[in-house]
Amino acid sequence: MTHPKKIIIDTDPGIDDAMAIFLALQSPEIEVIGLTTIYGNVYTTLATRNALHLLEVAGRTDIPVAEGSHFTITKGTKLRVADFVHGADGLGNQNFPPANGKPIEQSATDFLTHQARTFPGKITVVALGPLTNIAMAIQSDPNFVQNVGQIILLGGAFAVNGNVNPAAEANIFGDPDAADIVFTCGADVVAIGINITHQVILSDADRDRLAASNGLFSKYLCKILECYFSYHHDAYNTRGVYLHDPTTLLAAVDPSLMTYAEGVVRVQTEGISRGLTLFDNKVKRFGESNEWSDKPSVKVAVTVNAPAVVKLVMDRLMDS
Amino acid sequence: MTHPKKIIIDTDPGIDDAMAIFLALQSPEIEVIGLTTIYGNVYTTLATRNALHLLEVAGRTDIPVAEGSHFTITKGTKLRVADFVHGADGLGNQNFPPANGKPIEQSATDFLTHQARTFPGKITVVALGPLTNIAMAIQSDPNFVQNVGQIILLGGAFAVNGNVNPAAEANIFGDPDAADIVFTCGADVVAIGINITHQVILSDADRDRLAASNGLFSKYLCKILECYFSYHHDAYNTRGVYLHDPTTLLAAVDPSLMTYAEGVVRVQTEGISRGLTLFDNKVKRFGESNEWSDKPSVKVAVTVNAPAVVKLVMDRLMDS
Repeated sequence: MTHPKKIIIDTDPGIDDAMAIFLALQSPEIEVIGLTTIYGNVYTTLATRNALHLLEVAGRTDIPVAEGSHFTITKGTKLRVADFVHGADGLGNQNFPPANGKPIEQSATDFLTHQARTFPGKITVVALGPLTNIAMAIQSDPNFVQNVGQIILLGGAFAVNGNVNPAAEANIFGDPDAADIVFTCGADVVAIGINITHQVILSDADRDRLAASNGLFSKYLCKILECYFSYHHDAYNTRGVYLHDPTTLLAAVDPSLMTYAEGVVRVQTEGISRGLTLFDNKVKRFGESNEWSDKPSVKVAVTVNAPAVVKLVMDRLMDS
Repeated sequence: MTHPKKIIIDTDPGIDDAMAIFLALQSPEIEVIGLTTIYGNVYTTLATRNALHLLEVAGRTDIPVAEGSHFTITKGTKLRVADFVHGADGLGNQNFPPANGKPIEQSATDFLTHQARTFPGKITVVALGPLTNIAMAIQSDPNFVQNVGQIILLGGAFAVNGNVNPAAEANIFGDPDAADIVFTCGADVVAIGINITHQVILSDADRDRLAASNGLFSKYLCKILECYFSYHHDAYNTRGVYLHDPTTLLAAVDPSLMTYAEGVVRVQTEGISRGLTLFDNKVKRFGESNEWSDKPSVKVAVTVNAPAVVKLVMDRLMDS
């Protein structure tokens, strides 16, 4: 039997982050060796509190939480926090009591670079929020790109409209400069955009099945999901929710759930389409060099077996 | 019988511009009341010379040519001229003798606003190059938007890569500020992007048929097309050429050759994706207002009956 894949989840919990974290803990193919926190669905301090809380709910306080950056990488950008999606507390306005645990002394950046150095080529970073911590790891340790095994990130809107505005997806919009650093760093980067995750929907009926099961995680999640369902109904007129973070986590568990295209991705960092991700599909040989030329390629998910993803999410969350 | 639609072609000839102009002259559904010229495939002075030359080839020196802008609307942008696609003379390096005729005294902008004022609601502008002249008409006459019947433009890359670089299509890249003015002006604007025109291919076999016919236009075009075929083979590895301008012209002749989506288009005017066109498909109700909010909608072509377009191009160009 092969060893489970060592995973660090960079997260801004967040309702679908909670699902992804529980899903990770239920997946024998992977071993969660730490959580790093970031602003996005909530501010970083609340992300840290929620990460600790979720590990306590799961009885997994053995997993360290390292607090990440409170600012974008250029420090100049006003943070955009999605409390209108996840509730003011990030977990469906349930006002859970504060966690007992504390984050470790190491920062998220130091934790990432240290773990990648300790287990070279063996660490998969699953990045579920803006990419500030990952970009800081790239900048602070010249060997991080070589040491890290893979970076699987939820981010971008490839050839579709964004979810912050028509141009930009929320995680990339959260720190476009950091995202451009990550996309062009040369590591093994896999991007799961909303062109993929908007195909993966947990329906009202799925939620009813979750509610009817006696699993620890499914019972907890049904409490916090109300807010998330209501947002999706208002914004997209859907009777169901997009499984952004769980889908991205499952790309680490079973890469064959998706297919991928390889090419260069750059991020627009200014102007009206700030945060836009643009993938060069290499169909044309451009006569002139451009901002995509001679940059390292990444993998971008282009199709997904959505029913298989939803089934895996349901099976693993009900079996707890 | 209805009167033919009055058309002004704003053009930067250009090999496929020549095809579009000949096609227009062969189409009983439309009446070409003038050509206005613009930089793009060539500089504006050469565009004017080529426009006059093409009308002389066609024996249609009764049609006025009004010379357009030599600069982008903000005047700061270095012009990008596509001589590597169309030849140094814009017409396949055939070194035709200079035209005998001259452009009219009126500038392109004045011609456009004057004609729209003279025939309110009756003029269709078919814009085949960068949109500087059209934007200047919008800025110089507050009634132009109301007076013009329709603006059908070749421009943009909607949810596909560009042809100047992965972000931008050539006509929009040529003057992104002008394009943003046109897209948001409130007129009846129809955009035909390369997502459409890259589906409409004149093949090697089609060219052989053109060459075998005795039509005036088909014989002329076969001389100049060599350069265009060779560029497409090198850049796209296709054995055929994209019919950008003829397809756009035919959208004026028979709108039913395409289907359209309606929504707001904005143009990115700075940064690495300068010239990118971004269409809001209105799938999401954004909670926050953004740069697409409350702007006038345009029509964007989303599907094309490519075989029907190619057939119409062939039939009309051989029948001359």
